[in-house]
Amino acid sequence: MTDIMSIDPRTGAAVEKVAAETGEAELDAACRAAAAAADGLAALGRSGRAGLLRAMAAELEADREAVVAVADRESALGTARLNGELTRTRFQLELFADAIEEGSYLEATIDRPGDTAMGPRPDLRRMLVPLGPVAVFGASNFPLAFSVPGGDTAAALAAGCPVLVKAHPAHPATSQRCFGALERAVGKVGAPAGTIGLVHGTEAGAALVSHPAVRAVGFTGSLRGGRALYDIASSRPEPIPFYGEMGSVNPLVVTPGAAAARAQKVAEGVTGSFTLGAGQFCTKPGLVFLPDDEAGRAVAEHMTAAVSGLAPGVLLSEQVQGGYEAGARRLAEARGVRLLAEGPAPGAEGWGAPVRLLATAAAELTAEAAEECFGPATLLVTYRDPAELAAALEAVPGSLTATLIAEDAEGALVRELEPVLRGKAGRVVYNGYPTGVAVAWGMTHGGPWPATTDALHTSVGVTSIRRFLRPVTWQNAPETILPDELRETPQEPLPRRIDGELRT
Amino acid sequence: MTDIMSIDPRTGAAVEKVAAETGEAELDAACRAAAAAADGLAALGRSGRAGLLRAMAAELEADREAVVAVADRESALGTARLNGELTRTRFQLELFADAIEEGSYLEATIDRPGDTAMGPRPDLRRMLVPLGPVAVFGASNFPLAFSVPGGDTAAALAAGCPVLVKAHPAHPATSQRCFGALERAVGKVGAPAGTIGLVHGTEAGAALVSHPAVRAVGFTGSLRGGRALYDIASSRPEPIPFYGEMGSVNPLVVTPGAAAARAQKVAEGVTGSFTLGAGQFCTKPGLVFLPDDEAGRAVAEHMTAAVSGLAPGVLLSEQVQGGYEAGARRLAEARGVRLLAEGPAPGAEGWGAPVRLLATAAAELTAEAAEECFGPATLLVTYRDPAELAAALEAVPGSLTATLIAEDAEGALVRELEPVLRGKAGRVVYNGYPTGVAVAWGMTHGGPWPATTDALHTSVGVTSIRRFLRPVTWQNAPETILPDELRETPQEPLPRRIDGELRT
Repeated sequence: MTDIMSIDPRTGAAVEKVAAETGEAELDAACRAAAAAADGLAALGRSGRAGLLRAMAAELEADREAVVAVADRESALGTARLNGELTRTRFQLELFADAIEEGSYLEATIDRPGDTAMGPRPDLRRMLVPLGPVAVFGASNFPLAFSVPGGDTAAALAAGCPVLVKAHPAHPATSQRCFGALERAVGKVGAPAGTIGLVHGTEAGAALVSHPAVRAVGFTGSLRGGRALYDIASSRPEPIPFYGEMGSVNPLVVTPGAAAARAQKVAEGVTGSFTLGAGQFCTKPGLVFLPDDEAGRAVAEHMTAAVSGLAPGVLLSEQVQGGYEAGARRLAEARGVRLLAEGPAPGAEGWGAPVRLLATAAAELTAEAAEECFGPATLLVTYRDPAELAAALEAVPGSLTATLIAEDAEGALVRELEPVLRGKAGRVVYNGYPTGVAVAWGMTHGGPWPATTDALHTSVGVTSIRRFLRPVTWQNAPETILPDELRETPQEPLPRRIDGELRT
Repeated sequence: MTDIMSIDPRTGAAVEKVAAETGEAELDAACRAAAAAADGLAALGRSGRAGLLRAMAAELEADREAVVAVADRESALGTARLNGELTRTRFQLELFADAIEEGSYLEATIDRPGDTAMGPRPDLRRMLVPLGPVAVFGASNFPLAFSVPGGDTAAALAAGCPVLVKAHPAHPATSQRCFGALERAVGKVGAPAGTIGLVHGTEAGAALVSHPAVRAVGFTGSLRGGRALYDIASSRPEPIPFYGEMGSVNPLVVTPGAAAARAQKVAEGVTGSFTLGAGQFCTKPGLVFLPDDEAGRAVAEHMTAAVSGLAPGVLLSEQVQGGYEAGARRLAEARGVRLLAEGPAPGAEGWGAPVRLLATAAAELTAEAAEECFGPATLLVTYRDPAELAAALEAVPGSLTATLIAEDAEGALVRELEPVLRGKAGRVVYNGYPTGVAVAWGMTHGGPWPATTDALHTSVGVTSIRRFLRPVTWQNAPETILPDELRETPQEPLPRRIDGELRT
């Protein structure tokens, strides 16, 4: 069995052995334990599960210093960012706890018996119920917020589904440490032992997606890895939903007015956004559309100057570094693309990466150039007029975000571009930068393929819980077998639709 | 090109040529027209689309006599049933019109800017938007309510998605006639020409699922056909959601108490349910669990007597007849199964089918015996005790419905069985029969594989609209580019969640 090692990206050195790859029998046992935990987890009820999520938040908070230290050693993301990420992770668990107590996520609906145009209607009571065990694939770039204690885990547990996390190989020690915190919370609130499980290794991950006990998958990672696991999920004898958040190029458009009014400010904003966290955000703007005029050239010049002085980043892993170099080569070699600037080279040690700025013309934008390059690089794309811009945007792949930097006076142009951007993304950002995803009721973190496998859902925010629920209707059922939420007078009240009318 | 013929199932004779199979170029043109119609359809707004659905209902009603006549000639379902089905189809369109006017299906959400534990939050406004053109595969067994003007079409149009229907070969003339009614409505309300399209032929159907313009698929039909099309949808370069409603065996449990208290009544109810519409309901009870005692035997004897006297049914097509005979053979040859009764044989003409009653023991229930047999047959399964019953139920495939016929005094048994039944189905029916699906807010017509490809959704009832929508968030957007539903004061008010609080 292969050892799972914890690597320091700043040096490239293996620091410790964290675990062994999860073997077949061990994986099967974990899946069975998750399946066995499902009823007990549901039996906790909404307030019990809210308590579990809050206990998990508290355990992470109590272990903050150690969690941040190990995450920094494994990711090189820095303690400031990782402290913020832990706060976000805690907030996410607590917000979901509030949401399940509020209860509207269950879509509880009561249709009382009566006559309709189609004849008599029976008593129908509908709500959403948990799908069963969920496999979660942690992401490399958010070792906390999109990993073991992250959004998919919080959403699945909120829904009432046991979770089996496949730890990301870039941060196995962080995964193990966070898993310990979640397990302590499970113990403290008396949730079933199989509520949360952790597995290591690529083969174990594939086996997880194939396992009959697993009822859905949440994934954040590369398009290649996501597609491979999606194909496994879809070709099972009984296919299961696969929610993959994968590649996203996040087009950003600077209008002529915005370039003219604030070239330097825009250059600073875009540069800050595409180099944040060494460019390792799913929402990094990877295609920046600039007007082919003096103001647009000023933005490009400010960015060129900035990039030339930016220190190299440290990437998350050897694999990410290799992918960045391959992606930058692909970009630089794409027809019509030229390198505008490259920041100082990193030292030989560890997974360093120089910042890169490239440029091409909208009329020449190729599919190769429009593909995501994960890491601190972006491609400036100059357009001569709105028609050329719109045509180039149509050729951009589906993304998590699409951003418009514009002046208020440019109403007509903004109204013309908005539907094009909306057609390409799950979130349209106006005069802001796409990096940074608020955990909120109103967030959408999802978008047309290849941003996600399933544009119907978000993987961030309260409504991400919906991915792990299915509707059930009870017809003419006695109160004794109805869930509390569908009884005449629920002990834990919640918004419901009664005879078609939504009541809060 | 092959001709599409209208066949009379009562005689097996080809009555008329309806159309030619849709060719490649014609299909591509239809898909492009649908894509081109998307913006115009969305621009109608909620009230405009409600008007379109109501106009469709009115056009169908105006053509009722001719529609029912041609549907009866092609399906042999009888004019009483088909008149009811047309009423249901009209009601469905009208209910969806009401629902889109009400607006809560959009999940409109506003998070105002503010400080959070994670730092400042921008203005976030989220709602659901249409996916784009939807392919709908009409079902053989509901030539109106699950076909051209059926639930999937109504749901997709309500969502704002243009629809391309693949006509079922068992009722091409009905499809064409209904399509004419829908087209007249499109013209009357001034909706775009590509709002609704119709294609014929198996190859055209497969090409539809592959076409880049098609963004989702609704399907009702066999497991084999559904799986083949699901595999096409999932293996596209950009996979699309496929909502298939396929095979369902619909277990029905008669408790010892119910058998003892009302053997004859239960026998009548079950027999009526499994032979309704010649057993061609997706919700037909195909596995009937009876206690292995005197009362259970009395139910079986009443059913045996009833079946022996039941006239043969006429099935929808030669293919359905062939499938029924093959299914009945598979059942009869399954280990431990015996034929209890077979009704009078049909004449040589047309697609007649005798009613069949078979029996086995729960302890011997095999996978072959537990598989759906579409048509007027059911399998009685005798159980000796609740443990044997629960074990046999665990082996039953996922279904649209699961039914419990019990006495009020059997509370403990009912509470034990409810979670087992719920785990297997999308609708749990108590002291009723599963055939007959109300179009309502509280309906679930869906369930674990192979009942549907995606247990997360229903294909009947208002919430079926959700399948054809995806979320979009606008961040810091000016009012001028926001949809009406997300502006400070919408012109067409609707329930919204503002700063986390649901407001009706």
